[in-house]
Amino acid sequence: MSEANIYNQHLGQVPANYAALSPLTFLERAASVFPNRTAVVHGEVRRTWAETYRRCCQLASALSQRGIGVGDTVSIICPNLPEHFEAHFGVPMVGAVLNSINTRLDAASVAFILRHAEAKILITEREMSPIVNKALSLLEDDKLPLPLVIDIDDPSFSGGALLGDVTYEQFIAAGDPEFAWQMPANEWDAISLNYTSGTTGDPKGVVYHHRGAHLNAVSNALSWGMPSGAVYLWTLPMFHCNGWCFPWTIAAIAGTNVCLRHVRADLILSLVKSEKVDHLCGAPIVLSMMLGAEDEQKAGIEHKVKVMTAGAPPPAAVIQGMEELGFDVTQVYGLTETYGPCVVSEWKHEWDDQSVEARARLKARQGVRVQLQDGLMVADPVTLEPVERDGETIGEIFMRGNIVMKGYLKNAKTTDAAFAGGWFHSGDLAVWHPDGYVEIKDRSKDIIISGGENISSIEIEDTLYRHPLIQDVAVVAKPDEKWGEVPCAFVNLVDGANLTENEVIAYCREHMARFKVPKKVVFVNLPRTSTGKVQKFILRQWAVDAK
Amino acid sequence: MSEANIYNQHLGQVPANYAALSPLTFLERAASVFPNRTAVVHGEVRRTWAETYRRCCQLASALSQRGIGVGDTVSIICPNLPEHFEAHFGVPMVGAVLNSINTRLDAASVAFILRHAEAKILITEREMSPIVNKALSLLEDDKLPLPLVIDIDDPSFSGGALLGDVTYEQFIAAGDPEFAWQMPANEWDAISLNYTSGTTGDPKGVVYHHRGAHLNAVSNALSWGMPSGAVYLWTLPMFHCNGWCFPWTIAAIAGTNVCLRHVRADLILSLVKSEKVDHLCGAPIVLSMMLGAEDEQKAGIEHKVKVMTAGAPPPAAVIQGMEELGFDVTQVYGLTETYGPCVVSEWKHEWDDQSVEARARLKARQGVRVQLQDGLMVADPVTLEPVERDGETIGEIFMRGNIVMKGYLKNAKTTDAAFAGGWFHSGDLAVWHPDGYVEIKDRSKDIIISGGENISSIEIEDTLYRHPLIQDVAVVAKPDEKWGEVPCAFVNLVDGANLTENEVIAYCREHMARFKVPKKVVFVNLPRTSTGKVQKFILRQWAVDAK
Repeated sequence: MSEANIYNQHLGQVPANYAALSPLTFLERAASVFPNRTAVVHGEVRRTWAETYRRCCQLASALSQRGIGVGDTVSIICPNLPEHFEAHFGVPMVGAVLNSINTRLDAASVAFILRHAEAKILITEREMSPIVNKALSLLEDDKLPLPLVIDIDDPSFSGGALLGDVTYEQFIAAGDPEFAWQMPANEWDAISLNYTSGTTGDPKGVVYHHRGAHLNAVSNALSWGMPSGAVYLWTLPMFHCNGWCFPWTIAAIAGTNVCLRHVRADLILSLVKSEKVDHLCGAPIVLSMMLGAEDEQKAGIEHKVKVMTAGAPPPAAVIQGMEELGFDVTQVYGLTETYGPCVVSEWKHEWDDQSVEARARLKARQGVRVQLQDGLMVADPVTLEPVERDGETIGEIFMRGNIVMKGYLKNAKTTDAAFAGGWFHSGDLAVWHPDGYVEIKDRSKDIIISGGENISSIEIEDTLYRHPLIQDVAVVAKPDEKWGEVPCAFVNLVDGANLTENEVIAYCREHMARFKVPKKVVFVNLPRTSTGKVQKFILRQWAVDAK
Repeated sequence: MSEANIYNQHLGQVPANYAALSPLTFLERAASVFPNRTAVVHGEVRRTWAETYRRCCQLASALSQRGIGVGDTVSIICPNLPEHFEAHFGVPMVGAVLNSINTRLDAASVAFILRHAEAKILITEREMSPIVNKALSLLEDDKLPLPLVIDIDDPSFSGGALLGDVTYEQFIAAGDPEFAWQMPANEWDAISLNYTSGTTGDPKGVVYHHRGAHLNAVSNALSWGMPSGAVYLWTLPMFHCNGWCFPWTIAAIAGTNVCLRHVRADLILSLVKSEKVDHLCGAPIVLSMMLGAEDEQKAGIEHKVKVMTAGAPPPAAVIQGMEELGFDVTQVYGLTETYGPCVVSEWKHEWDDQSVEARARLKARQGVRVQLQDGLMVADPVTLEPVERDGETIGEIFMRGNIVMKGYLKNAKTTDAAFAGGWFHSGDLAVWHPDGYVEIKDRSKDIIISGGENISSIEIEDTLYRHPLIQDVAVVAKPDEKWGEVPCAFVNLVDGANLTENEVIAYCREHMARFKVPKKVVFVNLPRTSTGKVQKFILRQWAVDAK
């Protein structure tokens, strides 16, 4: 280009042609375009988008009255209730940051988070009160200032205590439903803070910004083809990556949020039928639960339901079972650091004619980047050199683009390490198939190294899942004097089934290379986190002790 | 907030967590995820996304070899051919700006545009050669440097001349299909330049940027609920607001582009059937054409086809006719300055049970802002005070947000005027209904002021369209000594129909207030622009002359 660029002359950003990307606009639009459409269903409670918008404005106004503003943290610990949905809008409407806390953490972890996040407000709920009460005591013991505690007093739970001085309804009643809330001054401003459920060490605070929340909310609708007015069931915890950004997605498409306090198969199946739920998300364990429900509960679903699953590769048998039930399962993959899913196992029509088993295996691959993510690769963890796309070479999964976190709160060193080389380091190990689809083989720390050979624990699990009598399985490394490590399988059988350790080992010998066969099999109920992930750090301890 | 904002400490933009928004990433993704899916169909030509991507890279590489780079203009004038689609990617891949020229302009206008845009390259096609040849002569006459002329030599048209030294195929053959193209350094960088087909005065060059093109491409898919792999027929000219950004949308959903040189009902209906087209866009005149086709051509469409229409409010009779044919019509509204549509007549389920006529009237309203547009209002043109939402008070339509142009090229004064007060001034007059839907009543200059009363020409047109013997109608002001202006109707009857001026006037007296009844009725074929808009400036002249 020889002359000055004519396209940069008097063509800058002005209020008419530039707006910060933020999911907050979706709420205002849903309320103005579909004021009478149902926004939230929770038991007897049904609120329209107009009503929900007014309550969000009241929450924002009430927070503002208490001096909460840009950069302040508002924590919430509660199930998937309407108030939790409202907090996703009311809190950022004053520039504050929503910190949604895992409801199954212990008191010490909750106290750590409140302290680290410098929470000025804590919204809690009666069912959470035992843990929250203890967490607040821990802060008091340390002479730390306590947040203002607001209690959601929800009639769908009996028991527990109100811990604070004000209920949620009292608090927002003081707020102005016409409050003049503000868009973020900058789309890079923080919108939420999610602590990763680390298996060891202190949790890390993952910060999201308005731009990323907007783009991932849209990405969900785009990659799932969600129509306006879809009905979404809250089987996925809202504390999990802000429910993968779905509170903002449902506002974008002016859909309906069907709340759910407890993830129980009977409740899920009943709501799917009564509310005509057509979309839901959850870990594979949620799908297994639904499959395990009584036939009567499973009968009578006559509309199509789309299910997004992540957290672990769903066993082929689970995908197959759900499809037979009439559910359309899509596997997605992501991490807290990527706003939840940013990789989707996109389906190709040319696979339609393959066998059920072959299709389930294709669906069990994590897939390709979503449209709005910029980059995805499997590469050498040190050199960042992409691995061969041969479906065999194991490398680490890297992402980059707008659907990657702002960084870790007050943790510059870990942030820099996570972003080293211009890519986000996921810590997950995978192969890259010739067609560009990524398939996870393990977390770095879940790889079993036996006699110098890398063994994927997931590969062994997948094989065991195909055994008709095995319902649940996890494989970890067991220290071994001779081999360094050997695979140890923890197995839960289907009700009434009978299987011995030797029979399991014999089955493995038939279906995998000799060096991969577990040397030890233990029959147990698997310990899982609140988000459905198997707690392998517990199993590793058990494996050490297993004789 | 009392202390420093903890959410802005070491949480800035780095390559891992920030990427410029640009539609270019959609092409690369479509090619890598769906390499074998058909991207482009044109007669016998069928190219996959992998092939199309390689050709775009070749085009970019070849342009780069000629020294074309950031801020340079590459003009193209050609029908909806594969090469036109490729230019939407290959040109911005080197940072250059695509200027797609209206194929129905006269030579002087084309010359004006080439000169004003400072085009360094002109891609043309044999069918365009008579006009382009003249336009180039006009530049030569003015001793201006000529752009490098590249000829598309497409076998689907016989005749015309090759004007340049190199064909498109020769040109890209020199390019590297593995070319390392670059994302824009800044998402605010220009991606395209579209001249408005002004009815008087010089055309204005509307500049789009990568961010807006990305967001509107996504917005199209989101507001239309387009699934991955949709099949899109190019009935809408690509030169019209870059085909409303649909080249980028189709890449985002990895769909299929079905090209179309001439908009003819038989071709459209035949392709809908043979290629299983499920989405198309066009002015209402395109829909009228399809409705007017022979029954045999209309028969045999067994799949659902979605149609987006804009450019003028489609007459209720046309919406109704298309629905009876099995097409699902959505009206959208926008301007060149808003990347095409940014307002959608979003449908509500509660309207399903209304009469066909009532539904058609609801669909004829322009609607509400799309999810990704920030603001829409009807307001006083001077004070920018929003009008009452009473469905009666007329005001001007204003938009603001990311789906508003960067500005007018080399036209600071007009840019400032268009953006005055923080909103884009559309120049269109509308009412705002109580439910928030906008309904256009007229362009500012199309309002007829008769005896001090404002008369909406569109209202008269709508009434006349409901007459069973009237196929096409436009109403303009005719100067009148007594009343200042009076309505003058230009009417085209359906084939074989017979109707007198007095009969039309009598019909109007039955259906509208006396002062609105046209004082003059003229039977003609309406003059239209290449985009289907009635050329009212011509009619105004005819009205002056009509006795």
